[in-house]
Amino acid sequence: MSEVDRLVAAARDGDARSTARLISLVERGAPELPEIAAALGGDAQRAHILGLTGSPGVGKSTTTNELVRAYRQDGKRVGVLAVDPSSPFSGGAILGDRVRMQEHATDDGVFIRSMSSRGHLGGLSAATAAAVRVLAGVGCDVVLVETVGVGQAEVEIASLADTTLVLLAPGMGDAIQAVKAGILEIADIFVVNKADRDGVDATVRDINGMIALGERAAGQWRPRVVKSVAARAEGIDDIREAIGDHWAYLEKSGELRRRREERAAAEIEALVLGRMRARMGTLRGGHALSELAVKVAAGAVDPYAAAEELLSDLV
Amino acid sequence: MSEVDRLVAAARDGDARSTARLISLVERGAPELPEIAAALGGDAQRAHILGLTGSPGVGKSTTTNELVRAYRQDGKRVGVLAVDPSSPFSGGAILGDRVRMQEHATDDGVFIRSMSSRGHLGGLSAATAAAVRVLAGVGCDVVLVETVGVGQAEVEIASLADTTLVLLAPGMGDAIQAVKAGILEIADIFVVNKADRDGVDATVRDINGMIALGERAAGQWRPRVVKSVAARAEGIDDIREAIGDHWAYLEKSGELRRRREERAAAEIEALVLGRMRARMGTLRGGHALSELAVKVAAGAVDPYAAAEELLSDLV
Repeated sequence: MSEVDRLVAAARDGDARSTARLISLVERGAPELPEIAAALGGDAQRAHILGLTGSPGVGKSTTTNELVRAYRQDGKRVGVLAVDPSSPFSGGAILGDRVRMQEHATDDGVFIRSMSSRGHLGGLSAATAAAVRVLAGVGCDVVLVETVGVGQAEVEIASLADTTLVLLAPGMGDAIQAVKAGILEIADIFVVNKADRDGVDATVRDINGMIALGERAAGQWRPRVVKSVAARAEGIDDIREAIGDHWAYLEKSGELRRRREERAAAEIEALVLGRMRARMGTLRGGHALSELAVKVAAGAVDPYAAAEELLSDLV
Repeated sequence: MSEVDRLVAAARDGDARSTARLISLVERGAPELPEIAAALGGDAQRAHILGLTGSPGVGKSTTTNELVRAYRQDGKRVGVLAVDPSSPFSGGAILGDRVRMQEHATDDGVFIRSMSSRGHLGGLSAATAAAVRVLAGVGCDVVLVETVGVGQAEVEIASLADTTLVLLAPGMGDAIQAVKAGILEIADIFVVNKADRDGVDATVRDINGMIALGERAAGQWRPRVVKSVAARAEGIDDIREAIGDHWAYLEKSGELRRRREERAAAEIEALVLGRMRARMGTLRGGHALSELAVKVAAGAVDPYAAAEELLSDLV
């Protein structure tokens, strides 16, 4: 039995250290990556992947915590990836939300990991995709990817999910921001958290207005709007119901298969291009690209001719 | 003489239609691209490329207009690319700022073009890079790339420039935004426009504070801060002086060569990867990637094995 097989077996038995070790290997693009992917096998496609995004302060951690608790009560294994593109901190040991950590620290049915933007070969979304595959492949029924903000990086990470939840809070002007950032196109469920605050009805109205403006084909999912007060565990059942309905829609409509095939195609393409880039870096003792760049910058060769030259060396 | 040679010759004589036609060809990735690059030759490396970015309302158009006027008074040929990543409109005919258009419309020493995010093979920054090369290659001494906002797309586009100017206005909270967006790292010159407004000193102080915090090696360029009131043509000479100083620094320090070689390397790499992606799309009658994606989504093959299979077909 290889070391990778041992790690995967232990992780499937609920050993958090082995899971953490596998994620560390895949997120830094270790040579064991293909072996790990092979060992995880088709199980990596079995989980329901939830994306949860929203501006700082809307209550993402609290909502994640409540959702994890609810899924655990149903006996489901849950993996959480807390992704912060702006944070330099990564790894299982450093967590923004210690309360959350404490509650589930002794539960081997829950695995929580924070990820940041540093040290990932191929970027944060590739690393997150690989980590999601590990969590699904070692037996998580639900993988929840939590991201801060609604910028481009977050939209990319949200695209890893089968179901994307966008959290808002009343009176934060988030609705307009959401439209600007293109989050409306990726949101399957809007959660208006802190619904005990003033302005909740206006926020819900704004979101419904935006949803009404969106075009969708007959039978296509219409984004759901749910209210919650996660800090008091209110509305969590409504969120779970919406998630369940969306999952049923995904399966029935064939959209799940379509989304996952699209995602797989993008992932394969990125891997192939990554390999080509690595190969490019080894040509002529690693100097091919820089030598051609010197010629282009000096005006001796144009970039297209340089690209053709490199390409003929590559294939 | 080929059609491309004819277009390049006419564009060099100041024919705006020929220049516009060349840019249209390169920005949509036409098959003539390599031929155009070859016809432009080493001249494409001769211009000083200025990047100008800032939030809406800080006075980018007015400042651009004044800079163009100043360069024209020195007899320099100027190309302007107004890039709006959020706008669906592109092409020479549609311009946000008609005033600017009017003033220079009859001057064949100035070429102005707006570019948007739509319809560019390889993305907006690749299209912008190609358009910059056309303008430089047909004889512009200065190419000014104006972008809206300080987001990721803008930072990428700014990286095309030899000298990057970041425009701010007093009291807009832009300084903090600038730090968040990583614009501080790419700004060579800060222009505090609308300097007749309240709060200008505080803004200048904030920027200088940020600059003081930045680490730089001995002899490295320290970002300059210049005040202007572009609407009254005040401070334009100071901006030009700062641009001139930065250009002198770039040449003397070897930084110009370094930046351009880096840019050339990134451009060659992007072209090669674009070619590989296109080639991938033609394998097995165009179905190779989607067939593998179906297998991956079904859990029958892992993404790494799929990538290896595709790669072995490619090379």
